[in-house]
Amino acid sequence: MGSLVFLAPIAGVLALCFAIYLISRITKMDEGSERMKEIAAAIHSGAMAFLKRQYRTLIIFVLIIIVIISVIGLVTTGEGSLKPETAIAFAVGAFCSILAGNIGMRIATRANVRTANAAYTSGLNKALNCAFSGGAVMGMSVVGLGLLGLGVVVLIFNNDSSIINGFSFGASSVALFGRVGGGIYTKAADVGADLVGKVEAGIPEDDPRNPATVADNVGDNVGDVAGMGSDLFESYVGSLIAAIALGSSLGIGANGEGMLAPLMIAAIGIVASILGTFFVSAKEGGNPQKSLNRGNIIATALAIIGIFVVCFTVLQSGYSVENAAGVLKTYSWLGVFGATVAGLLVGYLIGNVTEYYTSAQYKPVQKIAKSCETGTATNVIAGVATGMGSTAIPIILVVIGIIAAYQFAGLYGIAMAAVGMLSTTGMVVAVDAYGPISDNAGGIAEMSKLPHEVREITDKLDSVGNTTAAIGKGFAIGSAALTALALFTAYTQAVGIKSINILDPVVIVGLFIGGMLPFLFCSLTMNSVGRAAQSMIEEVRRQFREIAGLLEGKEGVKADYARCVDISCKAALKEMILPSVMAVLVPIFVGLVLGPECLGGVLCGTLVTGFLLAIFLANSGGAWDNAKKYIEEGHYGGKGSPAHEAGVNGDTIGDPFKDTSGPSLNILIKLMTIIALVFAPIFM
Amino acid sequence: MGSLVFLAPIAGVLALCFAIYLISRITKMDEGSERMKEIAAAIHSGAMAFLKRQYRTLIIFVLIIIVIISVIGLVTTGEGSLKPETAIAFAVGAFCSILAGNIGMRIATRANVRTANAAYTSGLNKALNCAFSGGAVMGMSVVGLGLLGLGVVVLIFNNDSSIINGFSFGASSVALFGRVGGGIYTKAADVGADLVGKVEAGIPEDDPRNPATVADNVGDNVGDVAGMGSDLFESYVGSLIAAIALGSSLGIGANGEGMLAPLMIAAIGIVASILGTFFVSAKEGGNPQKSLNRGNIIATALAIIGIFVVCFTVLQSGYSVENAAGVLKTYSWLGVFGATVAGLLVGYLIGNVTEYYTSAQYKPVQKIAKSCETGTATNVIAGVATGMGSTAIPIILVVIGIIAAYQFAGLYGIAMAAVGMLSTTGMVVAVDAYGPISDNAGGIAEMSKLPHEVREITDKLDSVGNTTAAIGKGFAIGSAALTALALFTAYTQAVGIKSINILDPVVIVGLFIGGMLPFLFCSLTMNSVGRAAQSMIEEVRRQFREIAGLLEGKEGVKADYARCVDISCKAALKEMILPSVMAVLVPIFVGLVLGPECLGGVLCGTLVTGFLLAIFLANSGGAWDNAKKYIEEGHYGGKGSPAHEAGVNGDTIGDPFKDTSGPSLNILIKLMTIIALVFAPIFM
Repeated sequence: MGSLVFLAPIAGVLALCFAIYLISRITKMDEGSERMKEIAAAIHSGAMAFLKRQYRTLIIFVLIIIVIISVIGLVTTGEGSLKPETAIAFAVGAFCSILAGNIGMRIATRANVRTANAAYTSGLNKALNCAFSGGAVMGMSVVGLGLLGLGVVVLIFNNDSSIINGFSFGASSVALFGRVGGGIYTKAADVGADLVGKVEAGIPEDDPRNPATVADNVGDNVGDVAGMGSDLFESYVGSLIAAIALGSSLGIGANGEGMLAPLMIAAIGIVASILGTFFVSAKEGGNPQKSLNRGNIIATALAIIGIFVVCFTVLQSGYSVENAAGVLKTYSWLGVFGATVAGLLVGYLIGNVTEYYTSAQYKPVQKIAKSCETGTATNVIAGVATGMGSTAIPIILVVIGIIAAYQFAGLYGIAMAAVGMLSTTGMVVAVDAYGPISDNAGGIAEMSKLPHEVREITDKLDSVGNTTAAIGKGFAIGSAALTALALFTAYTQAVGIKSINILDPVVIVGLFIGGMLPFLFCSLTMNSVGRAAQSMIEEVRRQFREIAGLLEGKEGVKADYARCVDISCKAALKEMILPSVMAVLVPIFVGLVLGPECLGGVLCGTLVTGFLLAIFLANSGGAWDNAKKYIEEGHYGGKGSPAHEAGVNGDTIGDPFKDTSGPSLNILIKLMTIIALVFAPIFM
Repeated sequence: MGSLVFLAPIAGVLALCFAIYLISRITKMDEGSERMKEIAAAIHSGAMAFLKRQYRTLIIFVLIIIVIISVIGLVTTGEGSLKPETAIAFAVGAFCSILAGNIGMRIATRANVRTANAAYTSGLNKALNCAFSGGAVMGMSVVGLGLLGLGVVVLIFNNDSSIINGFSFGASSVALFGRVGGGIYTKAADVGADLVGKVEAGIPEDDPRNPATVADNVGDNVGDVAGMGSDLFESYVGSLIAAIALGSSLGIGANGEGMLAPLMIAAIGIVASILGTFFVSAKEGGNPQKSLNRGNIIATALAIIGIFVVCFTVLQSGYSVENAAGVLKTYSWLGVFGATVAGLLVGYLIGNVTEYYTSAQYKPVQKIAKSCETGTATNVIAGVATGMGSTAIPIILVVIGIIAAYQFAGLYGIAMAAVGMLSTTGMVVAVDAYGPISDNAGGIAEMSKLPHEVREITDKLDSVGNTTAAIGKGFAIGSAALTALALFTAYTQAVGIKSINILDPVVIVGLFIGGMLPFLFCSLTMNSVGRAAQSMIEEVRRQFREIAGLLEGKEGVKADYARCVDISCKAALKEMILPSVMAVLVPIFVGLVLGPECLGGVLCGTLVTGFLLAIFLANSGGAWDNAKKYIEEGHYGGKGSPAHEAGVNGDTIGDPFKDTSGPSLNILIKLMTIIALVFAPIFM
């Protein structure tokens, strides 16, 4: 592999340097009035309080896993046993993901107020620039720490796949907290704030008197910055690790070229993403969406060129491996290029399909809005039908991607398709994290009573944020599925099974159990949101009751924002225990008791129904959200009409669908597979 | 096999004779007042009008399939080619299922008014007896025509599996119309009647002024008598055919004992069901539920004894077959007994689990009802969470059943488990079809203004009917899954594949596509209900507008009930085309283009997600329905409270879940598998 492997950590460092440059640019901007500073400080400290409490639980979880891996590693011996060093890789992976999330959250909660102030003092372009830069810090932290950490681990442990897998497991564990814990938190805060504030007390959204307001704004960052970031961090390193593992086990390239290529592509992708960010800017009165699209398309195009160069230089001599039928097949560098680009295109297209199903510009959402005219029931049925129907095209895209990747480059091609899809992760996360920053900026503008025109600019940015959030969600699901599939392939190589035969009833049984888990997982997380929201509701009621003058808005009387954040956070962390334990223990239990073939069936079942449910839930929820907004724009009676009430109901139903249960499934399918991969040695 | 094989058609004839005896008993009963007769006649003629229109479309569908099978049969030649005689078996299967449904509907719509009158003149026991006898006619027709038809086909075509499979395909085609077409019809009529009647015109449910009332009552029969009947008819013959096919292809027993045993068990099951019906009777003021349970348990116990005898006498010498790993294993008659009883118990338990999740007596529904206090949104989330969570236990039960059956008796054991589960189908259908008859009786009592006490009796019968409907739904889903699995096993034997390897990407691709189909199917059928309801709404509005004096209830002015039935029926049949074509063409297309292994993946994927979605949808819907009723009993504010409004919304959302999309999935998973089995010869 030579010295080229050093390019991976170097690219990681480059991304981090760029992040530091962006941070310095953001922090130099003005925060605006005292009132704005105060609110921003509350959100910022709320976000930090959330992270702090999360870390307290997370650290225990991480330590337990480290002990388990170390003990099993020290007890088991012989060829292919679990190595205790895996625990080190695990710890590094967890640390890198935590750090990326921390940096991202820290900056997002500084960029929000500056975005609001930029909209006030300088207009659209400056505000867009600030919000996007904030998002780009998260994006660069994810890919920078991902590739730097992984690159170092690969170098230190000399490419030993069984150890490196631990890095991915660490990332998955953090993602579990980010997505499941964070998902429960964000919706508990949202629902709690709305039910007591809007419904019971009759005060508007984002009103500073509501003690849960800050928790709600913190929630946006928790869900869409830290949660999404940890999710894509996991996919990013997971896809790379799967490709490295397959490159190694299939023996691709005489000098480890099969392991080098994915790292090089990731490095190229970072450069492409950095260059892409420079094309994001809008004229006054222009469309921020176009400008974000431009940046994304340029990054993608540059990545494709880079992938071509990497494949041509690194894999020029091609390779030969056996296919599923045991026949030796030869593949060329061009095949790998085709497979990688196929993945990249599938990711891009899935994002766009998601937009079609969830944006008010297209028919599906407009039809759902129309169904609100006949009430909530027809709205819910229309939304469920749309969400379920929206699974078809993404599945077909993934299927085409899998077939193409396999035809072009064999099993290795499937892992490379995932690497290709995730090569522009830096840009994708930047665009995605831009959303909650704009959303927060709007909230701050509202709470600090900035002029109406400011709110207009932030609303414009925010509405674009809704679209990018939808695209990001679709991308996250698609990349989770492809990454899980790549990890699954690596798992089967690791346990050395040549066939998982559906005709063997133990495999069918595995498919049934695995298929059921996402349903059970969603059931658990949906109920969790309800219970956690209840804790929040009680705390808000208590503050309204016990803090004299709060509800009346008396000068100088302040709500205890921090306590709301803390209580909701505690409830969320408690609620995530049961689903998390299930996700961790089921694969180990099945692997040990029913064997690796049955576990293969379980993983496949979970992958298939998890992917489908995730799309269904995310798209139903997104469509309801935008159908409500479409009505609020004046259609079918507008705000306050019966149709609007039906739309609001649909939106509330969709909240846990799209922000808790749906995205949590991304983690479930990846985490279960990575656990199977890490513990593969003890199942044999 | 000797002369014992004649026992099957003889038992079928016995069931039909018993049905005729019940019919004569029912028709001898008094129909009550002129007004009652008139309403009953309208429902009866509406039901017949529905069937007539359905037959017109069905006959075209059947003819097309006959032509396709014949042409392929005549064109293909050589070992294992599709035989043109399959078309004859197909036609006979379709005819038997149609006839069973026709008899059942005909009698159900005569028993309803007599049940109402019996409740008026003689009290609870006589009314229960009449309603249950009406249901038993359907039950006996299903098993009688199923076993008679199949037995004759087996004898005529000398046990040639590839021909006999056609019988099951015929039954599936009718079930497609019964469940999908019927499911769309029944909910379109229900929703249409409610929206225009209750909401727009402000008249109560079952008001004779509403032109859609009769269509709504017809819908109960269409869904729960004809639909459920054709569904279980399909499972019944499907499980038998799978066992016969596996008995043949695995070469179980030197003299075809493997083919004989399932037929004998079915024959014994008919006798057990007939005997069981004699134990259904209740004292005045007693609990009809207990009495139905008694009949069911006695039938089950008798069936177990009969299965023991059959296994002991027919399979005494046991058999040896290769397992999935290619090792020769020997199984005894006791193993087959164990496998068959395992299936029977799993069916019984799944029904009871369904009751737990959907009855207001237990916590899940009570919790959903409580969540109505905070509005529709929390009610919907709670219902979805409950439905999704309710998939876990049935899956575990089925998994235990599969493992037990396979351990006890190999692949043949899985088919025998399905046969065991369906052995008491006669009783199950009787109990299930009792529900809509009682429901109709209540409607007739209301429309003909019988005294309040009569309505009390019919309400008591009806509320038991809700429980039996829930149990029946659970049983139908469980039996569909096990039958589809048995047919799938027969399919893999028919195409002669020893392994469907998940590691082969084409199989993964199959799993993804197959897993997606139930989601798409549900999306299509849910949207269909909405559109078909729209046609109904427009017709009702037209009648209110154009028929002078109708809405005011002027003496002598009558609504055109028949036209409503016809329009809704036409819409339903139009709407079922797309999902049906998908269900029929996808397996053929995949089998021909992507090959039999990929088709295996598709069937498995559809089986897993179809089963899961069916349970989720049926149980969410059932739970919402009963949560609403629980509130109506006076909890959380009772009728007219905000909680009640939320409950009504949940109930309406659940309607297409539990009565259209959910049950339709039973057909999807069976139909796709049987098509794969029938067309297997052309995929090789």
